[in-house]
Formats: sequence, structure tokens, C-alpha cells
Amino acid sequence: MSSIVNHFPTDDDKLHEECGVFGVLGHKDAAAFVALGLHALQHRGQEAVGIVSVDKDEFYAHRALGLVDDTFSDGEIIERLKGDIAIGHNRYSTTGDTLLRNVQPVFADLAFGGFSLAHNGNLTNAATLREELVQKGSLFQSTMDTEVIIHLMAVSGQKDPLDRLIEAINRIKGAYSIVACGENLLVGVRDPLGIRPLVLGRLSEGGYVLASETCALDIIGAEFVRDVEPGEMVVITDQGIESKKPFGTSGHRFCIFEYIYFARPDSSLEGHSVYEMRKNIGMELASEAPCEKADVVVPVPDSGVPSAIGFAQASGVPFELGIIRNHYVGRTFIEPTDRIRHLGVKLKHNANKSFLKDKVVVLVDDSIVRGTTSRKIVEMVRAAGAKEVHMRISSPPTAHSCFYGIDTPSSEELMANKFKVEEIAQQIGVDSLAYISVDGLYRAMGETARNNDVPQYCDACFTGDYPVELTDKDNDDGNGRKVAVLHERQVKSR
Amino acid sequence: MSSIVNHFPTDDDKLHEECGVFGVLGHKDAAAFVALGLHALQHRGQEAVGIVSVDKDEFYAHRALGLVDDTFSDGEIIERLKGDIAIGHNRYSTTGDTLLRNVQPVFADLAFGGFSLAHNGNLTNAATLREELVQKGSLFQSTMDTEVIIHLMAVSGQKDPLDRLIEAINRIKGAYSIVACGENLLVGVRDPLGIRPLVLGRLSEGGYVLASETCALDIIGAEFVRDVEPGEMVVITDQGIESKKPFGTSGHRFCIFEYIYFARPDSSLEGHSVYEMRKNIGMELASEAPCEKADVVVPVPDSGVPSAIGFAQASGVPFELGIIRNHYVGRTFIEPTDRIRHLGVKLKHNANKSFLKDKVVVLVDDSIVRGTTSRKIVEMVRAAGAKEVHMRISSPPTAHSCFYGIDTPSSEELMANKFKVEEIAQQIGVDSLAYISVDGLYRAMGETARNNDVPQYCDACFTGDYPVELTDKDNDDGNGRKVAVLHERQVKSR
Amino acid sequence: MSSIVNHFPTDDDKLHEECGVFGVLGHKDAAAFVALGLHALQHRGQEAVGIVSVDKDEFYAHRALGLVDDTFSDGEIIERLKGDIAIGHNRYSTTGDTLLRNVQPVFADLAFGGFSLAHNGNLTNAATLREELVQKGSLFQSTMDTEVIIHLMAVSGQKDPLDRLIEAINRIKGAYSIVACGENLLVGVRDPLGIRPLVLGRLSEGGYVLASETCALDIIGAEFVRDVEPGEMVVITDQGIESKKPFGTSGHRFCIFEYIYFARPDSSLEGHSVYEMRKNIGMELASEAPCEKADVVVPVPDSGVPSAIGFAQASGVPFELGIIRNHYVGRTFIEPTDRIRHLGVKLKHNANKSFLKDKVVVLVDDSIVRGTTSRKIVEMVRAAGAKEVHMRISSPPTAHSCFYGIDTPSSEELMANKFKVEEIAQQIGVDSLAYISVDGLYRAMGETARNNDVPQYCDACFTGDYPVELTDKDNDDGNGRKVAVLHERQVKSR
Amino acid sequence: MSSIVNHFPTDDDKLHEECGVFGVLGHKDAAAFVALGLHALQHRGQEAVGIVSVDKDEFYAHRALGLVDDTFSDGEIIERLKGDIAIGHNRYSTTGDTLLRNVQPVFADLAFGGFSLAHNGNLTNAATLREELVQKGSLFQSTMDTEVIIHLMAVSGQKDPLDRLIEAINRIKGAYSIVACGENLLVGVRDPLGIRPLVLGRLSEGGYVLASETCALDIIGAEFVRDVEPGEMVVITDQGIESKKPFGTSGHRFCIFEYIYFARPDSSLEGHSVYEMRKNIGMELASEAPCEKADVVVPVPDSGVPSAIGFAQASGVPFELGIIRNHYVGRTFIEPTDRIRHLGVKLKHNANKSFLKDKVVVLVDDSIVRGTTSRKIVEMVRAAGAKEVHMRISSPPTAHSCFYGIDTPSSEELMANKFKVEEIAQQIGVDSLAYISVDGLYRAMGETARNNDVPQYCDACFTGDYPVELTDKDNDDGNGRKVAVLHERQVKSR
Repeated sequence: MSSIVNHFPTDDDKLHEECGVFGVLGHKDAAAFVALGLHALQHRGQEAVGIVSVDKDEFYAHRALGLVDDTFSDGEIIERLKGDIAIGHNRYSTTGDTLLRNVQPVFADLAFGGFSLAHNGNLTNAATLREELVQKGSLFQSTMDTEVIIHLMAVSGQKDPLDRLIEAINRIKGAYSIVACGENLLVGVRDPLGIRPLVLGRLSEGGYVLASETCALDIIGAEFVRDVEPGEMVVITDQGIESKKPFGTSGHRFCIFEYIYFARPDSSLEGHSVYEMRKNIGMELASEAPCEKADVVVPVPDSGVPSAIGFAQASGVPFELGIIRNHYVGRTFIEPTDRIRHLGVKLKHNANKSFLKDKVVVLVDDSIVRGTTSRKIVEMVRAAGAKEVHMRISSPPTAHSCFYGIDTPSSEELMANKFKVEEIAQQIGVDSLAYISVDGLYRAMGETARNNDVPQYCDACFTGDYPVELTDKDNDDGNGRKVAVLHERQVKSR
Repeated sequence: MSSIVNHFPTDDDKLHEECGVFGVLGHKDAAAFVALGLHALQHRGQEAVGIVSVDKDEFYAHRALGLVDDTFSDGEIIERLKGDIAIGHNRYSTTGDTLLRNVQPVFADLAFGGFSLAHNGNLTNAATLREELVQKGSLFQSTMDTEVIIHLMAVSGQKDPLDRLIEAINRIKGAYSIVACGENLLVGVRDPLGIRPLVLGRLSEGGYVLASETCALDIIGAEFVRDVEPGEMVVITDQGIESKKPFGTSGHRFCIFEYIYFARPDSSLEGHSVYEMRKNIGMELASEAPCEKADVVVPVPDSGVPSAIGFAQASGVPFELGIIRNHYVGRTFIEPTDRIRHLGVKLKHNANKSFLKDKVVVLVDDSIVRGTTSRKIVEMVRAAGAKEVHMRISSPPTAHSCFYGIDTPSSEELMANKFKVEEIAQQIGVDSLAYISVDGLYRAMGETARNNDVPQYCDACFTGDYPVELTDKDNDDGNGRKVAVLHERQVKSR
Repeated sequence: MSSIVNHFPTDDDKLHEECGVFGVLGHKDAAAFVALGLHALQHRGQEAVGIVSVDKDEFYAHRALGLVDDTFSDGEIIERLKGDIAIGHNRYSTTGDTLLRNVQPVFADLAFGGFSLAHNGNLTNAATLREELVQKGSLFQSTMDTEVIIHLMAVSGQKDPLDRLIEAINRIKGAYSIVACGENLLVGVRDPLGIRPLVLGRLSEGGYVLASETCALDIIGAEFVRDVEPGEMVVITDQGIESKKPFGTSGHRFCIFEYIYFARPDSSLEGHSVYEMRKNIGMELASEAPCEKADVVVPVPDSGVPSAIGFAQASGVPFELGIIRNHYVGRTFIEPTDRIRHLGVKLKHNANKSFLKDKVVVLVDDSIVRGTTSRKIVEMVRAAGAKEVHMRISSPPTAHSCFYGIDTPSSEELMANKFKVEEIAQQIGVDSLAYISVDGLYRAMGETARNNDVPQYCDACFTGDYPVELTDKDNDDGNGRKVAVLHERQVKSR
Repeated sequence: MSSIVNHFPTDDDKLHEECGVFGVLGHKDAAAFVALGLHALQHRGQEAVGIVSVDKDEFYAHRALGLVDDTFSDGEIIERLKGDIAIGHNRYSTTGDTLLRNVQPVFADLAFGGFSLAHNGNLTNAATLREELVQKGSLFQSTMDTEVIIHLMAVSGQKDPLDRLIEAINRIKGAYSIVACGENLLVGVRDPLGIRPLVLGRLSEGGYVLASETCALDIIGAEFVRDVEPGEMVVITDQGIESKKPFGTSGHRFCIFEYIYFARPDSSLEGHSVYEMRKNIGMELASEAPCEKADVVVPVPDSGVPSAIGFAQASGVPFELGIIRNHYVGRTFIEPTDRIRHLGVKLKHNANKSFLKDKVVVLVDDSIVRGTTSRKIVEMVRAAGAKEVHMRISSPPTAHSCFYGIDTPSSEELMANKFKVEEIAQQIGVDSLAYISVDGLYRAMGETARNNDVPQYCDACFTGDYPVELTDKDNDDGNGRKVAVLHERQVKSR
């Protein structure tokens, strides 16, 4: 029968960042700047987007599923978001059916007035805190971590909004970069280890900006001031910036995967150019795992391009576009037949046939997650006539799940968790396969090696060394309070 | 200049009921029955509609702006609302911009599990309770009264869900008919004075029904069992019905305006046929304020028809359709010019010109609120050539606002609050005007007169005698805590 | 299995008019007036609506599925329809899937300039003409009769647009009221027998109006001038009105069913008030087929109301609203189960239970088509406790299909074509049934009887006497050229 | 005042191909394959898309504005497009307001049956033919060239559909690649000079494919058979392929700009790999206009990448991603203020700041049209700290408009038509600027030089040498028949 419904596995073999955040204080075009900033951060989340602005004591919000431009390119919507303070959020959701009430920023009418908040990252004790709050009478409207923070603020005994926020943050654990706003107030917070990024910028006409990456400062012509520090809370008002460190700091463990894959190559984070770090990794990889007989170095576009350039430069093998990416990929196709389903991967990538014929090819990619896409790409390159296919990966094997804001499959689905490198090579069908080593990765970052006592980065996905306690995961005996779920569909029929 | 935007004043001169409620337990088609019941109750609210169903411990919801049929005529949506328990709600909203999060039923994940609730009516101490709850840390997501009830349940110290509901209801004041559902549970509650209606029905195949009016039992072929009593809580489970009276009762003051205008003429409420009561009022009016020289009795359609029939039968003057109503009136026209704006009233009503010419006409209508529509209708009837126009109103003068669930203009806008009957007659341009007297109204209801010591009905809109304390109104010194408002637009772009 | 999809048979047992037309010349608010006029004519067609306006030599169009108000209440849309000439059309479609390209008015870029046209009615030689035109090279874009007329204009050898129109109309046969516009030109045409209505009106500020019924003049405050005459072409320009009769006339056979059911009761057509004619029919029916023992006369709302009033007045039996109609009926419900499907008729009508109990009821309706609705209504009235149910129909038996613009089922589906009156009575379950006689109907219209030699009206649906040749039907040997059909779905995704 | 509405000039400085076409015969998944093929051809047109399928003598169509995936990823839509023959079309429209009736394929009910047709290219005598057809009575429904062809078929005296098509094509002039289908028939036609591409492919399971480029064969796994030849008509039926040359051929002048910019780099056209040709051009450019002191070769992404790789390889200067492109650019932003408008170009491109600092940069782009984007990109690269900026363009100066299917601005807007190379260099702010020479371009294509007597390609946009007569342009004295235009908005409200 020909009516089997199927979704093409387009990007499901990539890890996904869960969010991008952006905030502005002190400019009459605050909401427009937030829209542009979120546009520049679109790679960090494509499923939903929201902006909240503040005009004196009135708050304005607009949320939508889909891309930033789908909604916020409309000048009328921007004009409705009044005020010179605004924050915004791009969401990547792990569930198929994102509900609008799960779209950040969250807003609440607290005893002292309105408050709104968005964050990038993941709390590792959210379920535990939620249960405690519900038992005391808090009503949750979403299934988002973020709502836990605002409920903690609501039940805080503190008078001052900032004291409530500090009290709330002292309760949470995990990785989080928060932007928040209240009346006359923009706040940025980074978790004590600084796992997720957050940068501070300044507008030439006055006004401050908070953003997940520097590329979002560039788009609005804002000047980069500095990274917000691990465990720092920056409080921005018309009077300027105040820095606090009320949470304690426990080191500096920035997510190394931001350099490998998540961040945009034109961003600089923690003092490093992302593009240069990727090229460095490619160069290091060429020296760790060269392929002398190769005719061409071919990136798996787009993420593999910078390390392939590095690999090519270091090895002297020419860099070529042997695989072309179609950028018009929208919704996944729902296809009626098996015959067509198997064509899946080609929606996005096509081999440059006439070029690959009879070549010894080095494919450079950033990671292998489940291995499904890699296998299809190798197959496609072989079908195009390549003589040999060698794969080089610009990260160590991804063998552990992330609990700090990246949407990783469970460890059973991670190929590197189950198989040795040689087995993986065989399964994806390459003539040789090499990953960069953990120490090689650290060398590319400018270190001499990983400091195993006090590692310089969070590399839990490669090493299993989790720097923040996984409370919910550890507590999960299967007997906890079950959340009563409302499966909701909302329709705005007019 | 020709681009003044204007909304035609279509129905703005009518009072509006704020809601209809409906619930079913014990039938696999529960959600479909709720959709049909809400369809039959559509006259009680046309701006939004929602249904929540319960299947074991899973809850399903669907809410939409617009009419029941716009959304719930879709069989696929109904099938998604699983389970044999369901409740639903039709909303009439007083604000122009109804948000989906303000659409009932509300749902909450409470410590004991899920719970959902909808009500028809209005709480007179909602703002006071909300302020108290926010101070203690409750986060409100809507501006609905209904959310107060569920927060009161959330912070209750009681273990049992029903005990929490009883504790919550003991805190609220006002007029309310509630339907609620939890796991294996359907609950109906009427306020201690029974101001708003709620009836209980039974399905022939088994299963119980709660509805605002009996016409909603008819549509699904359910048998009428009895009215829920003032101050009664009926708890319906698979084991049957249990009746409780945990709130105290303080009399019986059913809203008399339900008979005059709100309820559907084919409903029976509190033992009276609505159609017969309206005809009785018309007859009583004919005897109190006859018009011997009249050639025809003409109803203002549709609400004036039953009392006009009564008036005609009692007076012997023929009943005729002198005004035709266009039932295809949808959105209000936004018209570019003054010239066209003045045509407004004709979108809905047209005089039966050839018929009214040279006649002495008795117009029968149910009420005069601001007087704007009445003036235009009289003008239209005169323009059609009527020799004389006499107006008879099947209610006493509406001189006081309702705080019990009816959307009334402020008393300054009520014509009868500012002017004497003769002044009103002059302003709307009639040759004579008469309202039924308060005692006449009670006589039509089968009483000998209004019992001024313990009145039989709530007639506050006519008499100003408010049977339930107006806490919020009395407390309103303008210095209360201000609610931080989020002006939100949500868009589901895919 | 519970997933059978079904549409409730809401109005499928009524005959449907296929269209309403409206045109204005000489007022800057032309398009707004057309929108209002079409609103007043909404009862003549609810599936689609279109307006074309002319501003010098530029034409503007807007078409949509659904009701007039759904689209044209939007002032911005109206403002885009520039110019002081405009025509519009309401469509009732016989196919489930109305396509926008089948929505009138049609427009064409002819050799002399633009021209637009809409009509109410049906051509009886459209297929024959279409085949001839296609053979010569005309490309049809729709399946509408109306497109035949504009193609005939396109291939005409005449120079002058009006001469082309006259030539085209001389080729067509059937019943048609046309409104058309070109540069500086509004044209109205009625077929030689005047089967379908068309009236001429004047705006007080200057400017002329053409409309299907007078109720559409009332809504914009236009003065009724006269009916357009059978076979007349009125040509309206800035210079005034010119009347032509270039088609020959062959009598005067206005559709008598317009009085019985289609037209709005507040319209006057051909010198008669529709409301009065309906009351007269009810009175005549009361004298032809009285029911002395009846307790109440109950109309099937809304169409049966005027004749029920006439019946009640003539018979002295009180008129009562024994059946209540729900006016919020929108889309038909798609219901998952048989159990619910059987509830169908109640979506629209409900018996006034407490009132009908133990009564002898005379039900008055305007016609019986397939009999399905009648049977359900009788059943409902009996279930409400009526002692006896007698039905009186304000038209003769509908035994023949209409080919002149009314959507009638094939004759095999017409109950009166297959059964005698007594058989019908038995099948719909009444104690007695009577239709008005053909001569009685003519008496109600003010005639002494039907003039069988030269009948005063088109009554083909009752008598089978078709006044215009049925060319397509007579030619249909099943061997004609087959139309190549494109099944199209269009989506405007942005 | 801050409310000036503006569209960011995103891609308006690129030339746009007007269409992509695709057809399949002989596979049950025909419509699904067409959807996938159009997905692969999305770069040739992004504004609208349509598919027509044929199942015996029934035709099915679906058209929509927007991208292929927006509509045709829906399996239900594909399943409605029945039959084993289908054709489709991607449209790039030059007008802001694309109407659905201007979306191809066109369909017509001709005397012999249904026929549907789509084309890529432009007719140079369409207006002249349209005027002639309208004078004889043809009614045009669109403003598309394509409709002229089908009207010529309709009025043809020939009996056989193919003879009609041949007669029609013999009347038209211009550049066109046509796919068409009728009952049991798929047809492909290329214009006598073969200006636009069209390739033939075969499915492994049987069935044939026509496509604008080979990349669309790859996506469905079809084997490339050969290019359709200039002036060839291929007629595909269940019996196989028949080739005809009924139009005469006049040489071979394939559009050279397809290699420079339009075609996808993974396509092979007329025996050349597009990617290799681009690299060759970059190499040739490096030899014609080297830049010895350069530190880095930076492409303007994405179109400049292959020639930049060629330039880098030939010159030994490292290739680097100095400019990052954001692929999530959707609708153009409508921005409220000047301040924000000036940020425009950054929506799509951002300089890789940390990398460009103090570098001597060679920017490689494919063309300069108006020069606006180039100026902004140079500005951005300088702002990032580049020491010198040298620009190299992989095409000769674009000094003439295209009349063969490419959307070019009028010649007055073409920078190279008004200014010398040095002037352009100054205006866009570069330290040096060089275009490849015409002969250099031909050398890169494998020729020794342009054969000025019988040029090997169409290069009219560079040389002004137009190989096909520009009838409409030459006839345009401003006194021709004016087309009566209907400005239409259609809304499908349900």
C-alpha cells in the first residue's frame, strides 16, 4: 500500500542548540533591534520566537511559531512592541508540537509589578523544583524550565525584584544564560561555570545590548564590550551597568561544542574567533590523521566548511565543493511511497557528480551523532564515482548526552557510545575514519592539552565529565509525582 | 476626509450574557455532545469557545475564537478530544481583543493531578482575592475570574480535590454556575442564591449532562432531570450522582432577565417555559399599557417576538412582521465614509415598507439600554410611512448595572438611569412609550407582586437591590495594587 | 466503527436561488454600496461573492468564498476597489468545491477595452454555445454560463461594446438578469420573459442602482424607480439612462417561486409586496384547506412565518412559535458516530416542548422538496407531545425541476414527482397534508385563476410548463463533446 | 517621523532567472517526482509554484505562491494529483504582487481535449501576438507569455494536438524551454537557438523525465540521457520517445550566464560541469587580473565561491570565508526607521571581523548589476579592518538588458552601461576592480576566443549582440493597443 506517511530525516542527525537570547535597553527602536538580533541568532533555534518589550509599566509581547522573519519582519508588529527595553528568544524545541504557551520569554504579574525572562540552556533540577512548587500551590502553565525561575521569584519573601531573582537563581542548577526585564531594568545572568555564552554590547547612540553571540551585535552595529562572566549578573538601567556576583563561581567551563558546531563562524566568544578555532581544528586534524593520497578535501556543507579549509591548507590537498547544499529546504516532505522516502537525504545535499568521479576524497564533517546522515552522504559520494572515501571528524566521538541545553539523543542512540571507530567506519561505509583527539581539540583551542584536574571547557558530550550535578536525572526513580498533562490545540479562528 | 474608520453599532445596544457552560460524564462521545450543547447555547456567548476532555489521567483541550461551528464542526478535532468526560464553555467577552489564554475552561496541574473548570457568571470579590493570592506568590496567566478559583484550589491545604474546590468556593462571592472535571469526575455548582441557571440531564444510554439551559439537553436528546439547586454541588462519577450543600444557601434569587431576554424561548428554567413567560409579559403589558387605536403589533426581531405575540393576543390587534431581520450579519462593516456609516442599523433590520405605510404601529421590544438602536428603528419605521409609533417594553426601565455576569454599560450610559419615561419617549421619537411595571413583571411570572422583603428574583438591574455583596466595587478606592498587564499578540504561523 | 464521516442535512431540503446581482454608477462610494447591497441580498447566495469596479479605464476586482461580510466588511478592501462604477454578485453554487475562478463577475480584456459582467439565472443553451465557441478557438477558464456571454462578445464582429453585448444576448436562451460594466458604463438586462427579477433605483445624491430586489435599495437609502422590464436593456452613463429593447419580448412570466420562498419579505417585486403575497397565500390556504380543530398555527421558521400569520389570521387559530430556529448554524458538523448523526436536524430547529404538549398543531411550511426535513420536523413536534400534526404547504406540489436558475434536485428526487399527496402525508407522518392549489396560488396573487393559454407567471416547477426552450437538455444524447476538466486547488500561501 | 516603510534591498542587486520546469511520464509517483524536481530547481524561481497531472483524460492542478516545500511537502496534496504524467513550474516574478492566475502551468480545454503547458524563458513577440489574438476574439486570463502559446493552439486549424503545438511554436519568437502534457503525452521543446536549458532523463523503473537542469534528475535518482537539442521537440508516450525538429534551427547559442550564475554548481549543462566552468573562470580571472600582494581570497557567498576557489588555486593566495551568509533570510523586513534601514545588507551577510583585520583582501563576486550591494559589502569589509580591498568579477561588465527570460533592470540602471571600470571601482570603494574579458570567458569555457562571426553562446547582456529579433521592443511606438487590466485580489476565505 502506498500511503505510508514519513518525514524525511533532514537534519535529525545534527545536535541542536536549544536557544538564542537577546536584549536591549535604552533605545527607542528596542524591539526592532531585538528582531534583528534574533534574526542573526536564527541558527540557535528555528521553531518559535518571542519578544517582550517594556514601556514604563506596560509590557507588550508577541510570540509565534516559525522563523523570526516570518513574523517580525512586519513593521506593524514591531511598532506595537512599545518601549525602549525589550528582550527576545529563539527556540529550538524537542517536541513535535510546540505550543505557543511554551514560547519564551515568559511574563508574570508579580507582587511588585511585571517581569519577563528568557533563557538559553537547561536546568538540571527543574523537575525537582517544580514538584516542590506545585505542592505549595504554584500553578504551572507550561512545561518550560524557565517557568520554574519565575515561580521561584513569585514565592520569594524578598521585596526587591532583583533580590527575588537572585534568590531564585540560587535555587536552580544547570547551564543558563538569562536575559530578563522589568520596569526600567534589563538583566543578564550567566551560570556559575559560564557554560552557555552571553555577551555585552553598546550602541553608538547610547543603550546596551545583551546577546548570545557577537554576530548579533554586528547586525545592529553595536560595539562588543565584553563577555558576561561566569556567575555574573549585569543589571542595566538608565543609570548604566552594575555588575554583581551573588551566586558564587566555581570555575570556567565554557561549552566547547559552541566552537565546533553551534556558534556562527563570524562570532567571537570568550576571546576566540569561532572561524579561526574551526580552521585550527581542521589543521590539527590534518596533522593527527592525514590522508596523503587524497585528491580533494570536500566539506559536508555548511558546518564542515571551515575545518575542511583548515585541513586543506595544512595538508596541501585542494579544497573543493564536492557536495552542494540546497538552502531552500523547508518543511519535511511527507511522502506517499517507500520509493520516494529513500531519496530523503538528497533534498538537502547533492554530490557534484562530474567532479568527484575517480577521485580519492577526504570528507570533513563536524560530528557523527546517529550515523544515518553520514552513511547516506558517503553512499552518495560513492555513487558519484569517488574512488575512495575517507572521513575526518572535527570533534572527538560524541558518546554522552548533553544535559546543559543541547538536544542530544539518548546515549543508546549515539553511535559513538555503542561502537568503536573502526566499526563506525565500516557501518558508514568509508575507507578510513578519524576523529580529532580530545587533547588535539584542546591544542587547537590554544591549550597544550586538556587539564584533566580542572578542565578548561565543558566537554561532557565527549568525556562524560559533567561539571554540574544532574539532580533530576539522579533522582529519577520513576516514582516521582506525575505531571498532569493538558494536550492542547489552540486555534485563532479570526 | 473620507477615511474615517468606524464600526457599525450593530448589537451594542443589547445586554449580553457572558457565558454558557456544558458538561458530560459517562459517554464515549462526550466531546461531541459538548460541542452540540455549546452550539445550542451559542446565544449566551459568541466570541470564543473551548472544550476540555478527560481520558483517565490525560486531559485534552481545544480552544478557539469565534463560534462553536467554526471550529468544532470538524470531526477530527472532536476525535482528538478523547475520553468520556468533557466540559465546555461559550464566552462573550467585553474586551475587543479576546486572547486565547482568556478562553475557558481553565486547566491546572495541581498537586493531586489535573483539574479543569469553567463558569458562567461573575465574581464580586475576584480582584480582592487576586491581590491576596499574588502577594503570596500565585502567578496569574489570564485576567479571568475563573483563574482565581483554580488558584484558591492550588493553595488549599486540603488533600481531596473536592475539599479543595469547596474551600475555594467558600472564599468567592458573586453569581456563578460552575462545571468542572477531574479524573473520573464531573462537578456542577450553583451559587448560593442560584442567580445563574444550571440544569441536570440524563442520556438514555447512560451518562449525565450539565447545561446552562434545557435547549442544550434537547439537541443531544438528553432527558431533563432537574435544575441544580442554589448552593448545591452535584458530584457525578461512574457511581452516580451525589448532592452536597457545603456553601450554605441564602435564598433563591434567579436572574429574572433570563426570562425577559437571555435564555432561549424553547428552554424551561426553574419550572417555567421561557416562551410562555415572555408571552405572559406581553399580555400583562397589553393590559397595563394598551394602545387601542393601533392597527398592527410589530416586534423588534428576534427578541421582541414572543412578547409581541402575547401583546397581540391580549389586545386583539394583529401581529405582523413589520421589521425584517437579516440573519447573515457577520463582522461589523468598517466603512470609509460618513455617508455610509449612517446606514448602519439597516445591516440588520429593514422596515417592511409597503406594509407599514399609514399604519398606527405598536413596536414591542424587550429593553432599552442606551437608546441608540431604538431611536434608529423608530426613525426607520416612520420613514416607511407609519402614521404613529407607540413603543412597549417588556421589562421595567434598566437603570442599574449588573455585577453578576451580564455585560452592562456603566450606569451613566443607561438611558433609564438619566431620564424619565417621557423624556426617553421624546428622545427616541415615539408617540407613546410604556415599560412593564416591576409588579406587572412579577405577576407575569405567576406571583401576585414583588415581595419587597424577600424578593423572589434578582432584579438588581431594575431595582438596584443587589443581593450579593459587591466587594471589589466597594473596595475600589483607586489605591489598590495595579495589575501588571501584558499586551500580547500570539500568532501560530504554521 | 465510529469514524464514518457525515454531513448533517441542514438546508439540503430547500430549493436554492443561484444568485443576487447589484450595480452602481455615479457615486464615489460605488464599491461600498455594492458590498452593502450584496449584504442585503445574501439570502440569494452564500457560497461566494465578488465585486468589480471601474475607475476610468482601470478595473479592480476582489472575489472570495463565503459571505459578503467575511470579506467586504473590511474598509481597506473596499478602498482598493476604486471608481464610481461597480457591480457585484452573490453566488450559490451547486458543486461542493467552489473555485475562485468560478466566482462572478467575469472580466475580459476585449478588443475595445475591459468589460465585466455578472448574472442571476441560467442559460438553457450554454453547453451548445460553448461547444461551438471551443471548436472555433475560444479558451474557457471556468464552467460558468456567464463566460459564454463574454466569449460571444469577444468573437462578435461589432465595433461598439453595446452592439457586441446585444449580439451575444441574442444568441443565448434561458432566464437571466444581467448587470455589466465597462468604461463609463453600467448596463442592466432582463431576459425576454422577465423570469428573474431586476429593479432600478436612484441615489438621492445622484447615481443609479441596479439590484435583484428592492430590499437592497433600502439598505443604501436608494429610491425605487421601477422594475427593469422583460427584454429590456438599460444603459446607464453619466448622461443618464437609456432604455432599449433589442431582444424582442415574448410575454411576461416572472418566477412565482420568488414570492413563495426566494425573495426577502421586505422586498416588492413587480408591484407586489412579497410579505403581503405570502400572507395572502396563507389566507387562501386557510380557506382551501382549513383545520378547524387546531389549537395552534406553528410556522416552520423562518420561511413559513408570513404564510402562517396569514393562515392564523384567516382561520382565527392562534399563531405561536412552536419551533425555535438557531441562527448560529455555520458549517455542517462532521460527526464521528451514527448516534450523533441522527441528531442532525436539531442543529437548526428545536421544538418548544412545554408549549406543544397535547396540542393539535397546524404546521405551515413553504414547500416540500425531498421530504427529509419535513419528516424530521414532524417527528420532533410529535416527540414534544403534540396530539395531532397537520401540515399546510404554501405552494403547489414541486414536481418538476427548474432550468432557469434555481438549484432543484433531479425530478426523481422530488417527492411530489413520485407520490400522491396522501402518500406524502403518510411518509412524513402527518395526520393531514394540504398544498395550495395552482389556481389558489394565482388568486392569492390577485388573479382570478391561472390563464392556461398565456400564464401570468413562470410556474414550471409546479406545472411542467417550461416557457423557454431547454436546448442543452433536449440536445443531450450523451455523445456531445466532453469538456476537459481541470480539478484544481489553489493556495495563496502568503 | 519614524514610520517610513521600507524594504531592505536584499537580493535586488542580483539578476534573476525567471523559471524552472520539470515533467515526468510513466511513473505512478509522477506528481511527487515533479515536486522533488522543482525543489531541486528552487534557485530558478521562488515566488510561485504549480503542478498539473494527467490521469487518462482527467487533469489535476495545484498552484501556490511561495516555495515548493511550503505547499508540496504535504503528502495529501500530492496524492490528489493523480496520474502517471505530470509537469511543474517554479516562477520568479518581476511584479510585486503575483496572482495565482499568473502561476504556470497553464491549462486549457481545447477542441481535442485538455492540454497543459509551462515554459522557462521569454517570448519577444508576445505582445504583438496577443494583440492579434484579442482582435480576433481570444480572451486572455493572465498576463503571461505562456498563455499566448495556448491561444495559438486553440485557434489553429490543425486537428492533431501536436500539429497545433507545432503551428503555435512556429509563430512565437524568443527563448523558451517548454514542457507540456496532454492525454498520454509529455512534450519537451527547446527554442531554435537553445538559449535556455532542458535535459532529458530516464527513471530506472521506467518512465522519462524532462528538467531544466541535471541536479533535478539527481534528486529523484534519474539517469541523465542527453540535453534536448536546440529546435528539438521530444514527444514522450508509453511507446517511448520520438524526436522532431519542425521549427528549423539557426545555430546554438546557449545562455552563457547559466554557467556564470544561474545554474546550480552540481548541474552539468551542454556537456560542461557548471562547477568546473566557474572554477575555470576564476582561474582565468586570476591570470588576467592577478593581485600578488593579497593575503586572502574571499568569496561573496554563495554565488562567488566556486570562482574564488579557482582564483585562489591559480594564484596561490589562501581561500577564506571572510564573509558569512545567513541562510535564514525570509521576507524582507519592513522597518520603522532610517536608523534600522541602513543596517539592511547585514541581514544576509556579515564580515568575519576578527579574521579580516589588517588583511589585503581579494573579493570575488559573479557580477555587478546596480552596484548597490557591492558598495555595501566593500564598506562592511573595510569596517572589519581590511587594509585593502580588491574586487574581481567572474563575468564581463553587464551592460545590456536580457530579453530572453532573465529579469534585468533597464539598461539605465545597469552600472556598467553608464560608467567605466575605473569609475565603478571608485563608486563601490575598492582599491582595484577587474572583470574577466569576453574572450577570457570563452577561454574558460574551453574555446580559444569568442567567434565574433557565429558566437558560440548567447552573451547579449555583455555584448549587446541579440541573436533573436526583439519584435515587441522594436514595434513599441507607444501607440499599440492598451491591455485592459484587472487589478485583482482573491481570497479563499474558507
